[in-house]
Formats: sequence, C-alpha cells, structure tokens
Amino acid sequence: MNVTLEQAEKIIAAAKKKAAEIDAKMNICVVDGGANQVAFVRMDGAWLGSADIALKKAKTARFFDMPTGEIGKLSQPGEPLFNIEHSNGGLISFPGGVPLKNKNGDIIGAVGVSGSVVENDHAVATAGAKAL
Amino acid sequence: MNVTLEQAEKIIAAAKKKAAEIDAKMNICVVDGGANQVAFVRMDGAWLGSADIALKKAKTARFFDMPTGEIGKLSQPGEPLFNIEHSNGGLISFPGGVPLKNKNGDIIGAVGVSGSVVENDHAVATAGAKAL
Amino acid sequence: MNVTLEQAEKIIAAAKKKAAEIDAKMNICVVDGGANQVAFVRMDGAWLGSADIALKKAKTARFFDMPTGEIGKLSQPGEPLFNIEHSNGGLISFPGGVPLKNKNGDIIGAVGVSGSVVENDHAVATAGAKAL
Amino acid sequence: MNVTLEQAEKIIAAAKKKAAEIDAKMNICVVDGGANQVAFVRMDGAWLGSADIALKKAKTARFFDMPTGEIGKLSQPGEPLFNIEHSNGGLISFPGGVPLKNKNGDIIGAVGVSGSVVENDHAVATAGAKAL
Repeated sequence: MNVTLEQAEKIIAAAKKKAAEIDAKMNICVVDGGANQVAFVRMDGAWLGSADIALKKAKTARFFDMPTGEIGKLSQPGEPLFNIEHSNGGLISFPGGVPLKNKNGDIIGAVGVSGSVVENDHAVATAGAKAL
Repeated sequence: MNVTLEQAEKIIAAAKKKAAEIDAKMNICVVDGGANQVAFVRMDGAWLGSADIALKKAKTARFFDMPTGEIGKLSQPGEPLFNIEHSNGGLISFPGGVPLKNKNGDIIGAVGVSGSVVENDHAVATAGAKAL
Repeated sequence: MNVTLEQAEKIIAAAKKKAAEIDAKMNICVVDGGANQVAFVRMDGAWLGSADIALKKAKTARFFDMPTGEIGKLSQPGEPLFNIEHSNGGLISFPGGVPLKNKNGDIIGAVGVSGSVVENDHAVATAGAKAL
Repeated sequence: MNVTLEQAEKIIAAAKKKAAEIDAKMNICVVDGGANQVAFVRMDGAWLGSADIALKKAKTARFFDMPTGEIGKLSQPGEPLFNIEHSNGGLISFPGGVPLKNKNGDIIGAVGVSGSVVENDHAVATAGAKAL
C-alpha cells in the first residue's frame, strides 16, 4: 500500500499544472508510506532552499498523517507540541504538505510543495493529491 | 549554464527506458551545476537505500566533474585519495554517477543511478546523460 | 552566471572597509549561485561563532533570493513560516545576508556578514553587495 | 598565538600564485590555532567538492599538528590509525594540509589545499605556509 512511481508522476504533473496556472515556481516532492522519497522536481527558477522544505513537508505530513499546517498550530509557543520541529532531522510544520490516500482511505504516502506563499504551496499540494 | 527541468526529465525518461531494457529497478537523480537536486525518481521495487546513493553519486560526479568510478580507483587503500568519501557529507565513489555536458562541453550538472550492479548503474546513468 | 572569485574579493574588501569604519569585527562570506562558498574571512577578534552564521546567512539569502531579515519577519511565532530555520541544515533568518545581482539583475550569489548587532551586519553586507 | 587575517591573506596570495604557476585551480583554506576557519577562497573553475576537502585538510593538519599525508600513512588498513577519518566530523588524511608555525616554532594554525593531484595540493599548501 505504497504510492507507485506512476501515481507519483501523475501527482507531480497535476501539481506542476496547478503551479503554472497560479504562476508559481515550485519544488514538489512525493514520499511513500515509509516517508521515503519516490519522486521530486524543482521547476526552473524555483527557490533552491525550497527543495529541502518540500521534502520535509512531505515527510512531516506522512510522519503524522495530517496536513503540515495542522502540526504548526500545535507547535507554537505555549502549545502542546512546541518546537516539535527539532525531531526527525527537522520537520516543517507550515502548510504545503498533505497525506496521500488510496480509494479505501489508506494513507499511501504524502506530497510536499514549497516555493510560494504557504496558501499557494498548500493549494498546489492539494491539487497534486487529488490526482490520485 | 544549469540543466533545466525539461532536460532533467528527458534524462530520467531515457534512464528509465534503459533500466527497463535490462530489467533493473533504479533510483535516478539529476543535480544542477551547483550540485543541487533538480529531479529524482525511485522505480517501484527499487532498493530504498539506493535513493541516497543515487543522490550522492550525482553530487560526487558534479563535485569533481568526472564519473564516480574514476574517483573510486583513486580512493582505494594505498591510493592517493584514500577515504575521500568522508568529505562533503559523504561521497559515493563507485560507478553510477556521470557529469552532464551541454553542446559546448560545459558541465551543467550530473546524473546518479543506483539499484543494480555498478556496471548496470553506470550504463543507465550513461544512457540518461546521452539524452541531452 | 556565478560570482567570480575576483568579484568576491572586491565584495569582501568593501565589506571589511565598512566594518572598519563602524569599528566592528566581522565574519564575511560569499557564496555563488549554487549556494556554495566562494570566499570567506574572519577579521581578527571577531566572534568564532559568527563564522558559521555568516555562511548560513549567505546561503539563506541565496536559497530564497531575498535579504535574510525578510525571512525572519515571516518565521516568528504565529507567522506563516514559523521554524523554517530547521530546513537546509539550518537557516539564519535575521539581517546580515543579501543576494548579489549582476548588471542584468540576475542573482549570481549572496554575501553573509555576522559579528555585531544585526543592523551593522546588514549594513556591512549591503556595502559588500554594492561593490559589484 | 593565532594566525592573523593579514597573515592568512598572505598565505592565500602565495598559494594562489603557486597554483597559477602550475596551472591548477585550487580551493585554499586557512584555520587558526583553534582549528576554526580564518579565510577561504575557491579559484574560478576549481572543483566544487574540493572546498570541503580543503577545509578538512586544514583542520586535520591542526588537529594533529602534522601534514595530512603523514596521518594517511597510519590510517591504511592494518595500520594503527585505520579509519581515523571517521572522527571529528570527517578527516582528510591525504596530502594538502600543513601546519603553520611562527618564528618561534609555535603552531598557530594550518593551511589546506585541494583541487589537483595530491602532490600539487601539497606543493601549493607548502608555498602558502612558507609565506609566513
């Protein structure tokens, strides 16, 4: 129950299409159920530093099976998971990472997107995830 | 003078085609002239541990502008570059990484492949590089 | 489209001159378009711990093509990029890193400065960048 | 009893001159008595991967107060320091790093050079060290 490369490529194609529509240059990463990278692309001109962020968003979304932005609400000062970002070699807890589910609702991986404002990152990741 | 994403996708497509021909399951990574990842795929069933090796092969080939196997000849016990692999956060110095050149002969990145015996890794990387 | 060593040396000379004028002891680092170090100096008596900060400021400015202080505004608690500093092996998001542009406006690297209050760090980095 | 920045810049200038004479493109790094980086340059076109090697050679030479190649003799399979390269975040134990001594013979830092065959790396490092 892992995302296949063919599925990952569909996700990335859909995410690239959405990114082009909103005129954003994105880094897009898909990880499998084991949180290991399956596919990655950096669009020409996208921020170099967003490559690692896209990967960490995808990993973070699979590590906790929820959109990354949900974790960020809990990791603020005074909140229960303050500074959880120090774990796992570095988490990213703002929007742009979403879990991938198959038709039965099983989580089979995650997609992470970085390169614009977080609302755009999340929209592109969601467009990718819906291509499944 | 960096490989574009379109070029990287051609390289990966050619590498996947070659891998299928020899019935190998590969991890394939393309980095740009700054040794930063541009694109990556892990074929279904490919070794998980070969993902990082493919990335490190691509980086190593760009770091020294030569096929990774050339470095490995020099890094053996008693040879001039023994244990060079400890630099740069970890090099991979056996075959499977090759530089990418444009029509003018400028190096614009590198491709790294891992997932089979090193002869196959090198053959698939070379097939990818030739697609430029 | 990378900063050359000759350009980097001019940038560092201008930054050192500015640092002397304001009586500050600085670490100064220049990276190229791939965020790889081209040149570095630590002025006598400058903080040891600022060497890594100068490097990380330069990398951060190139990773996101903006002055580092801009990122810091967005990475505060409650802001969209909270804890982005955990990516890319550690970012520095307070002032002192600025992108380097050529005459066409292309980004060809970045300079990072650390050793004093952040206003001084930014002023010295800017003096360096203007030497291009 | 640390190398000053002025001394480090003399060392680098002498090393660059020697490198130009032998037509080699080098990465050159000077560390102080605390094994912390004082100055660094990457000559245009020098191998990207040699930057970290030059730094590690300089650190290694100061860590053990001897030319790096001496350590490499002892770190071979069967020898007393086999695989010492795993310590200190990665050592480089082939030639190209040499300690820096003041007129009293006190060690005040080290210089590391990487970018060519190890004989050239060592020659350029030695030319730098002699500029003191």
